Formats: sequence, C-alpha cells, structure tokens
Amino acid sequence: MNTQLLSRIKAETRKVDEIILRVMGSGLPSELFEASKHLLQLGGKRFRAYVVLASCGAAGGDPTLAYNTAAAVELIHNLSLIHDDVIDRDARRRGHPTTHTVWGIPISIVAADFLMPKAYMCVLESQGSVPDDKLLHVIRKLSTAGAELSQGQAMDIVFEKASRVTDEEYFLMASKKTAALFGASAWSGGMIGEATEAQAEGLERYGFNMGLGFQLVDDILGVTGDESLTGKPLGSDIRQGKKTLVIMKAIEMSDGGSREVLMSLLGKHDATESEIKTAVEIVGESGAIPEIVRLAENYAQRALDSLNKLELRGGTDTLVELAQMAVEREL
Amino acid sequence: MNTQLLSRIKAETRKVDEIILRVMGSGLPSELFEASKHLLQLGGKRFRAYVVLASCGAAGGDPTLAYNTAAAVELIHNLSLIHDDVIDRDARRRGHPTTHTVWGIPISIVAADFLMPKAYMCVLESQGSVPDDKLLHVIRKLSTAGAELSQGQAMDIVFEKASRVTDEEYFLMASKKTAALFGASAWSGGMIGEATEAQAEGLERYGFNMGLGFQLVDDILGVTGDESLTGKPLGSDIRQGKKTLVIMKAIEMSDGGSREVLMSLLGKHDATESEIKTAVEIVGESGAIPEIVRLAENYAQRALDSLNKLELRGGTDTLVELAQMAVEREL
Repeated sequence: MNTQLLSRIKAETRKVDEIILRVMGSGLPSELFEASKHLLQLGGKRFRAYVVLASCGAAGGDPTLAYNTAAAVELIHNLSLIHDDVIDRDARRRGHPTTHTVWGIPISIVAADFLMPKAYMCVLESQGSVPDDKLLHVIRKLSTAGAELSQGQAMDIVFEKASRVTDEEYFLMASKKTAALFGASAWSGGMIGEATEAQAEGLERYGFNMGLGFQLVDDILGVTGDESLTGKPLGSDIRQGKKTLVIMKAIEMSDGGSREVLMSLLGKHDATESEIKTAVEIVGESGAIPEIVRLAENYAQRALDSLNKLELRGGTDTLVELAQMAVEREL
Repeated sequence: MNTQLLSRIKAETRKVDEIILRVMGSGLPSELFEASKHLLQLGGKRFRAYVVLASCGAAGGDPTLAYNTAAAVELIHNLSLIHDDVIDRDARRRGHPTTHTVWGIPISIVAADFLMPKAYMCVLESQGSVPDDKLLHVIRKLSTAGAELSQGQAMDIVFEKASRVTDEEYFLMASKKTAALFGASAWSGGMIGEATEAQAEGLERYGFNMGLGFQLVDDILGVTGDESLTGKPLGSDIRQGKKTLVIMKAIEMSDGGSREVLMSLLGKHDATESEIKTAVEIVGESGAIPEIVRLAENYAQRALDSLNKLELRGGTDTLVELAQMAVEREL
C-alpha cells in the first residue's frame, strides 16, 4: 500500500470536497441535503477525482484549474453508488449504513438525482478560468461517461438474472460501469491541462485501462472482502448473484461438486453465513483469484503503455503510481 | 380545450421527439433503452418543450434552433416522472402501466439516471449553431432547474408524512418541483432566440407563474381525475397522502364530520374504492376546487403580466394561448 500517495490524494482532494459541499449548498428539505452528502462524508478514496488532477498535472497544466471537474466526477461516482445500494438493497458501504438505510428509499432516489445537475454546476464553476469551448468538451465527455455508467449498471442488473455471462459481456459491462468514467476523468484533466487531442486520447486510454484493472480487483473484494477493511459484508457479490469475472472464473475452474455448490449459492439472497463462507472458500480454492489479479495487473500495464510516446510535459510519475495503486488496494 | 393549439404543439414537437430518440440511441441492455423510452412513447403533452419553442419564437428567434434544448427539457421532465412513479409505487400513468410496472424498479431507477446526461447531450447538439457562451448559460439554467426539481420531489416526499403543510410550504414545493423547469424552459428558449437579459428574465417569470398555475390544476386532477382522461386513478393523491393545496384547502373548508373523514382517509394506502370516492366527494363539496381554479387563473394572469413591456419582437400570441391552456386542460 502506497501510503505516501494516499496521503497526497487525501491532501489534494480536500479542496475538491470543499467545492462539492459549496456547490451542493443547503436548503429544504434538510433530509435531501443530508442524504446527498451521506456517502461523501463517509470517506471514499477520491481516486477518480485524483485521476483528474494528476492527468492535468501530467499534461503540464495547473491542477488547481481541474478541481471543479474533479468534484463533478466524484459526484457522478457517488450518485451511482447511492442508486446501486438502493437497487442491491445493500445495508452497508464504507463500513457504515448506506444512504437508504438512514434516509429511506424515496429520499435516496431523489438525493442521487440531485447530485447529477450539481455535478454539471461544479464544471461550470470553471467558467472564466477555462475557455468555454473546452468546458463544453468536458461536459460532453462527462455526459457520455455518465450515460455509459447507467448502461453498465443496467447490464449488471440484467446479468444477475442470467445463469452465466461471457467474458465479452463482462468486459462490456465493466467498460461502461467503471472504465468509461475513469477514462473521462483522465481525458478531462488532460484537456484542462492543455493536452493536445492526441495526448488527451492517450490519457483516456490510460484511465480506461486502469478502470478495468480497478474493477477486476474490486470484484475480488466483492467476494473475499473483509467488512472491517472494505466496508462491505463478506461474499456480498455471491449473495447478490453478481456475474463478475472472478466468480465466473471460479465456476469454470472449480471441479464438479464444488462448482455445483457455488452455482447453487450464487444469487441465493437468503443464504446463511456458513453457506456464504463455503462459497467464498470455493472461490478461494478455485485458483480464480490469482488469475484475476494477473489480469488486473495486465490492465494496469496497458494503462502505462497508453502513456508511451505521449511526451507529457508534466511527467508521468504520479500516473504510474496511481495505476499501480488501482490494482493493489486492500488485497 | 384549444384543439388548434394542441395540434400545433403536436406537429412542432415531432422534431423534438426525433432528436430525443436519436440522442438516446440504442444499445445493450435493450431493457435500459426500452425502459428509458417507455413514458416518452406513451405520449405526454410536450408542453414544456413547446414553451421552449414558443419563447424562442416570441423573442424573435428561429424556433428550430431551440429544438435540442426543448428535447433536453422534455427528458428532464420525463426522468422525474419515472422516479416519481417508482417512489409513489404508481401502477399507471397516461393510461398505461408505469415504467417500473413493465421493467421493474432496478432498471427503472437507472433508466431515469440514463436520461439526465442524455438531456445535456441534446443541448450540446446545438454546438456550432448556438454560440458556446449561450450554451453554457442554458446548461447552467437547466442544471439549476434540475436540482430544484429533485428538491421539490424531496419536499413532496417529506410532506406525505406531515400532518399538514402551510400555503407557503406548498408554494415552495410547487416552485421547485414544477415552476422552476417551466421558467428555465421559457428563459432558455428566449436566450436561444436572441432575447436580451431583461427579456429572458421576463420570460422566466412568465414560465414560472404559468408553472404554478399548471401545478395547481394538476393537483385538482390528482383528486378528481378520471382515469380515462388523466391516465391516473381517481383520488390517487388522497391515497398517497399528498399535501396539495386543493387537499389542504378542502380540509380547511369542510365542516367537522367531513373534515374528520377526509383527514382519516388522506394517506390511507389501503383505502377501499368506496372510501376514496367518499373522500373525493368531500373535496368536491368543500368548495375548494373553484377556489384553486381561481388561484390558478390568477397565476396564468401573472404569467401574462410578466410579458408586459418586454417588447418581444416575435409577438406573444402563442405564449398567451399557452398560459391559458396550462390552467384549463381537462377540468
């Protein structure tokens, strides 16, 4: 764990948090404002926000100009989490009760809705300091990524009912749900930092590949994650019937009896603790996890390869560290 | 009913619908795209879209330049309806099953989310034909209205649990939930149509007041509405416990026994058909409805007053007709 990078992220994204809270403002009903802020105030890595800032810096720009867009990206991410939790009926995230657990489903649905226009208002805070045409570009990129995010969430939902999904289906889902916003974050940061078109596209590929690696690792945590570390209950993806690549691979790589058991427990919402434990053990014994870790590291490497020949004026040291962190995390 | 205006609206907003469908596109999962389009394809008046076009024309502009923004407004409105129906667990709208009745709650939640970035993408379709700084203005105005819409929805939810709400609370809720988007529609149309700042602000007041009148009438339909005309079951707002002004006034204006009955049925989700009928009769006998109609007509007049002295180059005939239609509808 790169604790030095983590504390840099924390320090630099504090300004981003300030922008978020200022643009969100306060008002009536207080329930809406509290619910909208709930997850943001429980922490979170601000990883995507930092991808924006680091990409701006790598392009040779002044990262402070990218604070507002970083805030927008973080809001888009957070609103998707609020609705994800409602949809999955997840009671806990980041080690705390989820938004709807505290504020109820109706308020949580509109609390997330509230954050989307606020994300655009964050971007618009840069009017005057970033040229208008560039802001419109950023708004277009974030809109595309935002729509793809919903598309990815919808695939995730549909896949829960499917008995299996192919690798291609999984990667399409992960591209939409996670990688697109990472890519848009890096692209936007680069654009604000005066990157050329080619450099911004390279940065987008960097972010996109890193996002895929990030998601693969996140999926492992969705199975093996220890609540004290990840904030999510052990085996939550198994209970939910998520068709993540690590679960699909574990089914593929397990032998007869174990495979049957794992398949029967996948999506069993009322599974007992001990059944979930069994399923997690089967995934562990299948050999799928090291395979997914290797794959995630491959994507991190592809992310770095995307930076080759871009000749970024601001250097790529931080981007390299970030790509490594994306696939390491709490494994 | 101004059938001539209705058919003009229908004809002119056909182009708006084409833009919506093109920008929404198609893809996987098909469930998402179908669910997102569901309400749009069941009709709807496209009233807000036409406010954009008519305001553009009144300002002396070319309404075809405002098609994209009209599409955006219609998408924002529709996404709020999808979530409203999920929150209220309403089974029917526009005489047909609601989105979640057909596609389930999880997909419907993300289907509405999907429409928000698509709304911005509609606005961005005007890049090149509308100056960049004007587009950013429109994006800012729609974002503010979008956030207020969620705020109004949240108030609506909170008010359901309140035993009563004051007139002021009601008007704050209606301003946010309905009038803000009407105001933003008129403002945006005017802005695209080369209105001066003062003219755009006058148009915004016009839209805002019309929106309040519209909501007051909508509330009456929420009580007395005949499903064959309004697409909503009779007395749906009573069952839901909505604190609309007409219901609050009916409680205030009914005498002892009737008031008790009405209050006991307000928010009784499992009320029988005959109980609902009784409640609707009590509202009818209270004298609240003509009072609310008068109030709505007042707001329509205020809308027209807002146009005074603006010297709009394109004339205000259509705006006048629209304001009248907003408070007449299917009463």
